[in-house]
Amino acid sequence: MRQNGGPGKEPQSMKSMEPIFSLRFSLPERTAGRSSGGMLRSVHTQLRSAIQDGRLKAGLQLPPSRTLARTLGVSRNTVLAAYDLLLSEGYLRARRGAGTYVEDVRSKLAGRVTRVGSDRPAAINEFWRRPPPMIGADKRRWRYDFGVGPPDVSQFPFVTWRRLAGRAMRSLAKETAGSAESQGRPALRAAIATHVSFTRAIACEPDDIIVTAGAQQAFDVLARVLVTPGRTVVALEEAHYASLRHLLGATGARLAMVPLDDEGIVTERIPARASVVCVTPSHQFPLGPSMSLQRRLSLLRFARDRNACIIEDDYDGEYRFDGRPLDALQTLDSDGRVFYVGTFSKSMFTSLRLGYIVAPAWARAALVAAKHLIDRHSAVQTQDALASFIAEGHLARHVRKMTRIYAERRDLLLDALSRYCGDQLAPIASSAGLHITAKLLAPTPAEAIRSRAAEVGVKVQSVDQCCIGPPPLNGITFGYGSIATQTVDAGIRLLAGVIDKEHRRTRRR
Amino acid sequence: MRQNGGPGKEPQSMKSMEPIFSLRFSLPERTAGRSSGGMLRSVHTQLRSAIQDGRLKAGLQLPPSRTLARTLGVSRNTVLAAYDLLLSEGYLRARRGAGTYVEDVRSKLAGRVTRVGSDRPAAINEFWRRPPPMIGADKRRWRYDFGVGPPDVSQFPFVTWRRLAGRAMRSLAKETAGSAESQGRPALRAAIATHVSFTRAIACEPDDIIVTAGAQQAFDVLARVLVTPGRTVVALEEAHYASLRHLLGATGARLAMVPLDDEGIVTERIPARASVVCVTPSHQFPLGPSMSLQRRLSLLRFARDRNACIIEDDYDGEYRFDGRPLDALQTLDSDGRVFYVGTFSKSMFTSLRLGYIVAPAWARAALVAAKHLIDRHSAVQTQDALASFIAEGHLARHVRKMTRIYAERRDLLLDALSRYCGDQLAPIASSAGLHITAKLLAPTPAEAIRSRAAEVGVKVQSVDQCCIGPPPLNGITFGYGSIATQTVDAGIRLLAGVIDKEHRRTRRR
Repeated sequence: MRQNGGPGKEPQSMKSMEPIFSLRFSLPERTAGRSSGGMLRSVHTQLRSAIQDGRLKAGLQLPPSRTLARTLGVSRNTVLAAYDLLLSEGYLRARRGAGTYVEDVRSKLAGRVTRVGSDRPAAINEFWRRPPPMIGADKRRWRYDFGVGPPDVSQFPFVTWRRLAGRAMRSLAKETAGSAESQGRPALRAAIATHVSFTRAIACEPDDIIVTAGAQQAFDVLARVLVTPGRTVVALEEAHYASLRHLLGATGARLAMVPLDDEGIVTERIPARASVVCVTPSHQFPLGPSMSLQRRLSLLRFARDRNACIIEDDYDGEYRFDGRPLDALQTLDSDGRVFYVGTFSKSMFTSLRLGYIVAPAWARAALVAAKHLIDRHSAVQTQDALASFIAEGHLARHVRKMTRIYAERRDLLLDALSRYCGDQLAPIASSAGLHITAKLLAPTPAEAIRSRAAEVGVKVQSVDQCCIGPPPLNGITFGYGSIATQTVDAGIRLLAGVIDKEHRRTRRR
Repeated sequence: MRQNGGPGKEPQSMKSMEPIFSLRFSLPERTAGRSSGGMLRSVHTQLRSAIQDGRLKAGLQLPPSRTLARTLGVSRNTVLAAYDLLLSEGYLRARRGAGTYVEDVRSKLAGRVTRVGSDRPAAINEFWRRPPPMIGADKRRWRYDFGVGPPDVSQFPFVTWRRLAGRAMRSLAKETAGSAESQGRPALRAAIATHVSFTRAIACEPDDIIVTAGAQQAFDVLARVLVTPGRTVVALEEAHYASLRHLLGATGARLAMVPLDDEGIVTERIPARASVVCVTPSHQFPLGPSMSLQRRLSLLRFARDRNACIIEDDYDGEYRFDGRPLDALQTLDSDGRVFYVGTFSKSMFTSLRLGYIVAPAWARAALVAAKHLIDRHSAVQTQDALASFIAEGHLARHVRKMTRIYAERRDLLLDALSRYCGDQLAPIASSAGLHITAKLLAPTPAEAIRSRAAEVGVKVQSVDQCCIGPPPLNGITFGYGSIATQTVDAGIRLLAGVIDKEHRRTRRR
C-alpha cells in the first residue's frame, strides 16, 4: 500500500503542521471497534475539502500518519489509506524520503496558474483569493463519459436553429441595436410562459418571467437580491449542485446543510432562521428521487410559517420516463414564496446560455433591476431565435424525441449496472432527468473509485463532490446525457473491474 | 410661481414629517446674505436624491415651506422654488388644499409597478428593496435626442455583421454547443489584444484579456472580486457613471467621492483607506476633459504607496478629434495595479453586450473564476463574429468613418451652442468621445433646465444626475451619438429658448 517513502519518515516541523490540527474533523461514530470504510471516507473527504478550499495550503507538509491518527482517535491504517488515496488523486505529493506535501491543486482546479506578484494589492476579497473550482470547464476527452450536465447534441436540429437564428439576425439592425428589455424579450417571455404551463403545469404570465443567461445567472440574480451578506441563512440540500453553493458563498450567504431522506429534504431539519431554501424537487441533485407531495406541502408550510422563500431548481424536469410528475412547488404555492428556475441547457445545448425565473410579483421589480444592473439584458438575437423555436413547436418535438433516446440509454445503463455491478452498486429509483446515482454496497469510498475510473478513461462523479460535509451516502453518479448509447455497456463493464479492484485494495487495508 | 395650492396650507402631522428632518443636508456656504441659485440647486438635488433613494417614502407629506426653511436656515423662497421644481419634475404631488406629498416615483423609475403582497417574505435585502433606477432603459422617442450613451447605428455595416454572424453560426453545432471558455473565445481575445495595442498603445497578450457581457459586467466581475462587503473603500470621481456607483453599492462597497478639477481626479483628496479607485482618464464622465499626465502619474503613485488598484474605464476613448491621446493608465502602470475596461457598445452597437477587462496577472484567475461562476461565458456566436469583425479590419474602418461623422456633428453642436447659448453655456474643452458638457453661466439649476427641456421633447442630461452630493459644477451634458446631424442646430435653438425662460423664472424668485 505505502508508496514513495510515504509520510512520517522525517522529523516534522511542528509549525508547518499546525494547520491540519486546527481543522475541525467531524467523524462518524464508530459502531464497531475497527476502522470502517465510513471512517476512511470521512477522513479522506475532509482532508480533500481542506486542500480544495485552501485551508491546507500548497506546500504544507503533512504530519506523520501516527500523529494524525492519535489526534483523530482513528487507526493508523485509516490515515495511511486516506493519504494514499489523496496521493493517487494528486492532492498530495510525496518527496522521496522527505515526507508528504500538499500539492498545488487550486491553481490547476482554477484552470490556470496564478502568478502572484511580490507586491500584490490587498484588494482581492477573502472569497476570491481562493476561487472555487470551475465546474464543467473540464475539456478532457473521455473514453466513456458518464459526466453529469451536458445533453446529447448529436440529435439537436441545428439546421432549424440556424434558420431561426438567421431570421432573428436579419431583423438585427437599428431597432434592436439599442438596449433591449432587461426582463427579456416579450416574445420569448410569452413563449416560455406557454411552455411551462404545458410541461410543468405552472400557471404564469409573460410578466412573471425574467430571462437570464442560463440557470447560473438566475441563481446569481436571486442570490444578490435575497441575500444580505453575512446575515441571510440559506438552506441547501446536504447533497447539491456545487456551483450553487459557490455562488451563494460568493454573495456572503450563511449556508446551512439540511439532511435528505427518500422523500427529499427533511423539512423539520431546516434551521428556523433560514430565509431561503434551495431545493430540486423534480429530480434531487445528485441523488435522483423526486420530493414527495407530503414533503412539498411541508416545505411550503415552513416557508409560510417562517416567512421564508424557496428556490425551486428544475434543471432537467422536462425528461420524464414514467408516471405523471408531481406538481411543481411553484404550482402548489398560493403564497408567492417560490422562485422557479428553469434552463434550456439540458433541453437544447449548454452554450445557449438562456434560462429563466418565474418570480412572485413582490420580488419582480428588484430582480429585473438587478439583471439590468449586472449585464443589462441577455443576447437579443438568441432570445428571438429561442422564442420562435418554442412557439413553432421545435422545442417540444426535440424534447419528445430525446426523451425516447434517453429512456433507451437509461434502460441500457440500468441493465449494465445490474449485469456487471449488481453486487457492487444499488441504483436509487428515479423517474426523471439525465443521471442516475447508485449506492455502493461495500464501504470502498466512491471518491477512490471515481479517481481510479478516471485513470482508465471512465468519467463518473461521486456524491462526495456535491457535499461539504460527509455525504448522505457513499454513491456514484452516472450522467447519460453525453455518452453514446452503444458504448454504455462497455463503459460499465470496464467500471465494474475498477470497482472490484478497489474493493480488494480496501479490504486488504 | 406657486401652483396647485402649494405646500403649507394645512396643519401637518409631525409624525409624518420626521423623515425629512432626519435627512442630513449639506448646503453650500452663503457668501452673500441672500438665497443664491447654488443654495436652491443644493436643496433641490438633495431632496430629489432622498426621494429617488426612498429615504423619503412615497405618500409622505412634506412640511410647510416655512418650517423647512427655518430648519435649514435658508429663505422660504428657496424652499418654495425647490418644491416647485420637484412638483414640475413629478417627484412631488400637490393635493388640492391638502399639502404636498412625495410621489411614487421609485416604482416608475424601476420601470414597473411593485405589487407588494400583504405578507411579503423578509428576504429581499436592504439594497434591492429600493432598486436604483434603470439607466438607459428609457424608451421615449425624443424630438431632439442629446442622450448620452447609444452610438449612431445608421452607418453600422449590418450587412457585413450579419455575414460574419452567419458564418459563426454555421459552425455552431456539436463543437460549440458545449460550454465555451469562461475567459472568452481565444480568437476574440487575440483580436482584442491586437486592437487595443494599436488603438490605445496597451501592450497585452490574449491571456491578459477577459471577455465580459459589456462594460457593465466587467464592473460587476471586478466589484465582486475586489470588494469585501461593508469593508472595502472604493473611490469614485465626484461626477461619475451612476450605474457603476449602483453596482458598487449593490456589492457592499463603501463609496468615497473624490473632487475633480481641470486635470481630473484630485489625487490628494483620495482617502488613504481607498483600495480601489475608479476613473475615466481618456474622457472624464460626464465632464469631458482628459486626465493630465501629471495626475495619471500621481494616481499610479497613490496606488503603489497605498497598495490600491485602479479601474480605468475607457468607455469611448476610440473616438478622438484632435491631438495624440495620452497614454492609458494601463500603459503607464509598471506595477500591475490597473484594470483596463473596454466596451464595443460605443464603437459598434449597444445590444452587442460585449466588453472586456485587461487584467494584471495576479487577479486573472480570480476574475475568470468569477465570470465562470456568475454566467459561465458570454454568447459564443457573437464572440466569434466579433473576432472576425475586428480581425478583418471592419471595426477599425467603422471607427474611422464614424470619427469623421461625429467630428462634424460635434463641430455643429459647438457652433450651435456658441450661436444660440453663447451667454448661457460655456462648453468644457474635451477632445474625445461622444458627449460634451457645458457649464451654465447663470445660477439656474441644470436639473430645472433638463426637466423643462424634456417637456418640449429635447433630451439632455444634467451633471447632477451623475452625483450624489452637490455637483462639481452646474452643467448640462449633450450626447451626440444618437442625434441626426441635421437636427443638431434646431435642437439647440429650441433648448436656448428653454434656458432663457428658465433663467427668467429663476430671476423672478
